[in-house]
Amino acid sequence: MLTTIYLIAIVAEAMSGALAAGRRNMDAFGVAVIAFVTALGGGTVRDLVLGHFPLSWTQHPEYIYLVIGAGLATILLARHLHHLKRLFLVLDALGLVAFSVIGCQVALAMGYALPVVVMAGMITGICGGVLRDVLCNQVPVVFRRELYASVSLAVCALYLGLQAVGVGQQIALPAAFGLGLSLRMAALWRGWKLPTFSYRERWE
Amino acid sequence: MLTTIYLIAIVAEAMSGALAAGRRNMDAFGVAVIAFVTALGGGTVRDLVLGHFPLSWTQHPEYIYLVIGAGLATILLARHLHHLKRLFLVLDALGLVAFSVIGCQVALAMGYALPVVVMAGMITGICGGVLRDVLCNQVPVVFRRELYASVSLAVCALYLGLQAVGVGQQIALPAAFGLGLSLRMAALWRGWKLPTFSYRERWE
Amino acid sequence: MLTTIYLIAIVAEAMSGALAAGRRNMDAFGVAVIAFVTALGGGTVRDLVLGHFPLSWTQHPEYIYLVIGAGLATILLARHLHHLKRLFLVLDALGLVAFSVIGCQVALAMGYALPVVVMAGMITGICGGVLRDVLCNQVPVVFRRELYASVSLAVCALYLGLQAVGVGQQIALPAAFGLGLSLRMAALWRGWKLPTFSYRERWE
Repeated sequence: MLTTIYLIAIVAEAMSGALAAGRRNMDAFGVAVIAFVTALGGGTVRDLVLGHFPLSWTQHPEYIYLVIGAGLATILLARHLHHLKRLFLVLDALGLVAFSVIGCQVALAMGYALPVVVMAGMITGICGGVLRDVLCNQVPVVFRRELYASVSLAVCALYLGLQAVGVGQQIALPAAFGLGLSLRMAALWRGWKLPTFSYRERWE
Repeated sequence: MLTTIYLIAIVAEAMSGALAAGRRNMDAFGVAVIAFVTALGGGTVRDLVLGHFPLSWTQHPEYIYLVIGAGLATILLARHLHHLKRLFLVLDALGLVAFSVIGCQVALAMGYALPVVVMAGMITGICGGVLRDVLCNQVPVVFRRELYASVSLAVCALYLGLQAVGVGQQIALPAAFGLGLSLRMAALWRGWKLPTFSYRERWE
Repeated sequence: MLTTIYLIAIVAEAMSGALAAGRRNMDAFGVAVIAFVTALGGGTVRDLVLGHFPLSWTQHPEYIYLVIGAGLATILLARHLHHLKRLFLVLDALGLVAFSVIGCQVALAMGYALPVVVMAGMITGICGGVLRDVLCNQVPVVFRRELYASVSLAVCALYLGLQAVGVGQQIALPAAFGLGLSLRMAALWRGWKLPTFSYRERWE
């Protein structure tokens, strides 16, 4: 079940990466790279930070074909995709929750301390988008926009908290998805944001 | 033989990195860093992704001196280098092939699946240039320009294909170099490009 | 003693990262990430490059709270911080020396060759700032500004040189701090710079 959601999510992330590449007029190869990095970059950074070798995607070469295929298909489908904007936002939110939970699971299984487990969840959830934005030469949108990383944090906290008090996966997982999806959707529809910090002074 | 080509290639890559640093008015230290990253960054990312520790260049400290020396020498030689533009393009193409083949060899020796082997070859071939461009604050040129990554892909495919059907190194290697060099040169002289994907719409 | 300086230094680095995030109008989450990356990113890159797992900060979750707390506190304190500019420059210089020495120690303990040990020191000293600038979408200031990386290099060379001739930690450490602080302060007050390399020609 989590795997199915994960596969849907990496396809959605790959397509969002491909659109970002198109906004920078990249060629087909650049589109494939950005699609790959957006979909699998979060898990890659997490695995590197945790020392979790071999990296997850290297053991599932089919994921490589899936995300690159999704990226290239986006080139053909691009003109129709904006009709699906809402669907994308839902899939992206699903992916954010799935990535966060999977990141926590990997770090938990390796015996890391709780704050590191939470960071592993958040890294998995947001680093794909951060790498996409760095490669597209812009300040990562996740550092500026509506609640996104905070949703990942809330999901990790709930998922780990429920497990800590003895609640099983079959309840903790749906609870995490319920919280994450509703929080993210509410943030989008209501325009919830974290306070922004603007600092003008230059010291040099 | 492959090692000799590799050494020539990292010098050429280091010098191209130094020129990119000069276009950003960096100081001597920045030049040394960008030279190092351009020449050895591809292998570094490959080793990290494959979990291939210790990293290759840490076992060959002489490479560090070589690429940093080449980068700093570029500052002195810069005004004469544009006469050598064609030579550079050939050396760069040689390097692309050598890096790609070496990347495949490392991943093969570690027992990775075929798609991962190809990706290791391409990562070695192109990530140095990607890191150079990210550190110089621009969209990586390899995602937008004439055939470059595609040459790496073709080289990896031919090299691995020949080995798969039982052809030995002494034929597979020259074949890979022959294909890679002629493809890259043809792409440069004819201006071959991959189709570009331009997407204007912003959804937010 | 070195640990105390290290803790002060990561707080100072986290605050400088938070101010950089404020210059890009990031939200509270972005501030926390940039603070974290600026303070602990150098050690992270060093650990990755050396294959030093688990990463240092994952074994000290209290560092995570410390740097994120310092980053968020900076939002509240920002308007008063420019009075402390000089203090910050001293703390930052302290941090540069502490990071460099610690980086050398980690690589030495793992048995790496001398040039790699020096690079580990410099990577620890400067990569936090490089990552901060890449995430804030600007050319890393350390590649362009007054003596900074050179100070790290001098500190590593002195520290390792003294140890090589049999001088103990209790002398090598203060000597490294003495040299590093005075060199950095002199560079700041006198405006010392490395020669800059400006290259205008584009070959394409």
